[in-house]
Amino acid sequence: MSPPEKLSVVVLGGGTVGAQVVRLLEEQSEDLAARVGAPLEVTGVGVRDVTRDRPGIRQDLVTDDLAALLDTGPDLLVELMGGIEPARELILRALKGGASVVTANKELLATHGAELHAAAREADVDLYYEAAVAGAIPLLRPLRESLAGDRIRRVLGIVNGTTNYILTQMASTGASFDDALAEAQALGYAEADPTADVGGFDAAAKVAILASLAFHTRVTLDDVDVAGITSVTADDVAAADQMGYVIKLLGIAELLEDGTAPGVSVRVHPTLVPRTHPLAGVRDAFNAVFIEADAAGQVMFYGRGAGGTPTASAVLGDIVSTARNRVAGSTGPGESSYADLPVLPIGAASTAYLVHLRVLDRLGVLAAVAGVFAEHGASIRSMNQKGEGDEAELLILTHAAKEDDLAATVTALRDLPTVAEVIGFMRVIGAGQ
Amino acid sequence: MSPPEKLSVVVLGGGTVGAQVVRLLEEQSEDLAARVGAPLEVTGVGVRDVTRDRPGIRQDLVTDDLAALLDTGPDLLVELMGGIEPARELILRALKGGASVVTANKELLATHGAELHAAAREADVDLYYEAAVAGAIPLLRPLRESLAGDRIRRVLGIVNGTTNYILTQMASTGASFDDALAEAQALGYAEADPTADVGGFDAAAKVAILASLAFHTRVTLDDVDVAGITSVTADDVAAADQMGYVIKLLGIAELLEDGTAPGVSVRVHPTLVPRTHPLAGVRDAFNAVFIEADAAGQVMFYGRGAGGTPTASAVLGDIVSTARNRVAGSTGPGESSYADLPVLPIGAASTAYLVHLRVLDRLGVLAAVAGVFAEHGASIRSMNQKGEGDEAELLILTHAAKEDDLAATVTALRDLPTVAEVIGFMRVIGAGQ
Repeated sequence: MSPPEKLSVVVLGGGTVGAQVVRLLEEQSEDLAARVGAPLEVTGVGVRDVTRDRPGIRQDLVTDDLAALLDTGPDLLVELMGGIEPARELILRALKGGASVVTANKELLATHGAELHAAAREADVDLYYEAAVAGAIPLLRPLRESLAGDRIRRVLGIVNGTTNYILTQMASTGASFDDALAEAQALGYAEADPTADVGGFDAAAKVAILASLAFHTRVTLDDVDVAGITSVTADDVAAADQMGYVIKLLGIAELLEDGTAPGVSVRVHPTLVPRTHPLAGVRDAFNAVFIEADAAGQVMFYGRGAGGTPTASAVLGDIVSTARNRVAGSTGPGESSYADLPVLPIGAASTAYLVHLRVLDRLGVLAAVAGVFAEHGASIRSMNQKGEGDEAELLILTHAAKEDDLAATVTALRDLPTVAEVIGFMRVIGAGQ
Repeated sequence: MSPPEKLSVVVLGGGTVGAQVVRLLEEQSEDLAARVGAPLEVTGVGVRDVTRDRPGIRQDLVTDDLAALLDTGPDLLVELMGGIEPARELILRALKGGASVVTANKELLATHGAELHAAAREADVDLYYEAAVAGAIPLLRPLRESLAGDRIRRVLGIVNGTTNYILTQMASTGASFDDALAEAQALGYAEADPTADVGGFDAAAKVAILASLAFHTRVTLDDVDVAGITSVTADDVAAADQMGYVIKLLGIAELLEDGTAPGVSVRVHPTLVPRTHPLAGVRDAFNAVFIEADAAGQVMFYGRGAGGTPTASAVLGDIVSTARNRVAGSTGPGESSYADLPVLPIGAASTAYLVHLRVLDRLGVLAAVAGVFAEHGASIRSMNQKGEGDEAELLILTHAAKEDDLAATVTALRDLPTVAEVIGFMRVIGAGQ
């Protein structure tokens, strides 16, 4: 096969990112042609509503006949419309027709990733999606390439900018969740309906994608155990601070090897992060993904998780890579052969807890509380008392133990007569953990 | 050209990293063959002293006839011997013979990079060196690929683990430089002769390589303005802490566009970093590189900078990439066309200073000091007084100004009758800068 003289590019989606990608492809056409080895030509931009004005996109390129666009047989399809359908159907059709595909669609990848990857493999074309997780941070490529031969143990990610902005505000000003959310909405960091962000669902889709890549295993959104930040209180933030921690909404994917067979645990929940951990310094709307691997050790990637320009920059990087591969007549490193480990329930994971109790002022209360932990195999690392009398509160930090045992401990504490209230409990990662 | 049935690999250097790379190539041979598309076979390991025992390397592979090894016409040469010669000569010979080359040799790249790149381009083969800067951190690949279409403004790197360990100790324990160095030596973090590390020369070689990639410009070790950490005192660390900063040895490469023609400034010096900046949280022997680019915004890469296993992991990643390219009959994205901007002297850079003075207890001392700054066009951001009477000290933080003007300010302060002593001055980066 001789190298193509030029590569045709069809873009689906005429929103902020789509328009910016089309603009960059035009503006940088000479430089891109030099880097790719052949010129890239945008042959069509598919949108839902052709009547809307789209500055920067030539009107003669715009059409709402998406199927007809694919029938032109483009070399590259760039999907930026989002949502499951018709994106899924159009991408599958493009892959089967021999096009390489670049997409930023995290929702689609987190639910139908296996099907899309299989279609790409079958057609021997590329499927790239750097912009789907942590926007402008070059992250998926190192996972696929640089760390591909390594054994990844754990991935910890701050992958949702909205929740990180809210938690940063709560920590720095002592604001309540509601006030911090309202401020984030006023500043445009949170949407009017913030459920996908504050409920942890956006982070869950991203961690499903990360887990699939890191562990060569099919992980979908449904496999992810999700808890958002809506129940995080100013008291929780203060208690964490007192113990030397900050609260972050982490997406966690880890290899579990204790049981009889290896598996992976994939979850999203508010987590206490030691102030000395690199993730603790990730402030405001920034994202970061922290990876622990056997050979590489600890590696972290940090940057902007969202925004039109950073996202367009990531999409453009993918376009160059897939186009280069096409000119070379090859494909990039795709999915490795699947290990397909089972995804285990959160109960099987090992974690540490910070338990916050209000206790009655009675003799032997500490002994009774400590007894409940011991009974469930949860060992206490430190215990701090706040206040006195019937206002006395206890902050109890455990060593790592099985999530199931810690959950059972909390249930048993609720039944203990000397415990007035279980104010809250939160999962904790260690400084070196 | 049909894909090769197998790829022959010659390794030069039988030290820790070399032995580990040879071992990994054997142990993971099946997995590597699947990822590359063809098996990799180590056909020889070149060493200086064949009599030394090298556990894990088959004795029949070892030879000290390095020229004869190259005459076998390997597909890949992996150079891990270090130093300028004979590494330079052997790599050039291999490239000219059509081999792709993987090296971790920062010294060689920082002095003869342009020559090596030209030879690789000429022969249409790959020259990869991920392990040469910041060990296990996948960093050069994103710079070459993901950020290649972006406009990079500035690169700030903590790229020497020894000095970062020493500065972290000084900040956390209040130790003097000498004591922290002695401890680092006892723990094996610093060598018996620590000059290359504490003098900033190791960092200078790495920042020269980073600057060359980031700005498509030939920057060599000689172009880098270098100041190490030997003169950093416990007082400096305490003064920085008082102002909300930590001291880091930064390698800085930045685009300067103020003057009549654009140029780059490349330098290494102790720098005050605001405690809220992501680089401030990079502790102990870790490395991190912070990049500011027009489209991607701020991006940071963090991880282990050194160590046999992390370095071997980075080398292995490069071996897989170059081998894959060879199987595909292509090469990776090499050097972009050179912009070849001039490298400007440090005096042309813009920076901020923290100036530490001991002043006499006289009327008008503040006015006199402030006058000297104003005279040289350096505007004061904040001024803090410590102590009283003839022990009074001033900490003066400036806004960003031209390095030349700030240096002239310090010189003029030394001549001011009310200034008893210029205790020190250090360069500062801003939180958002």
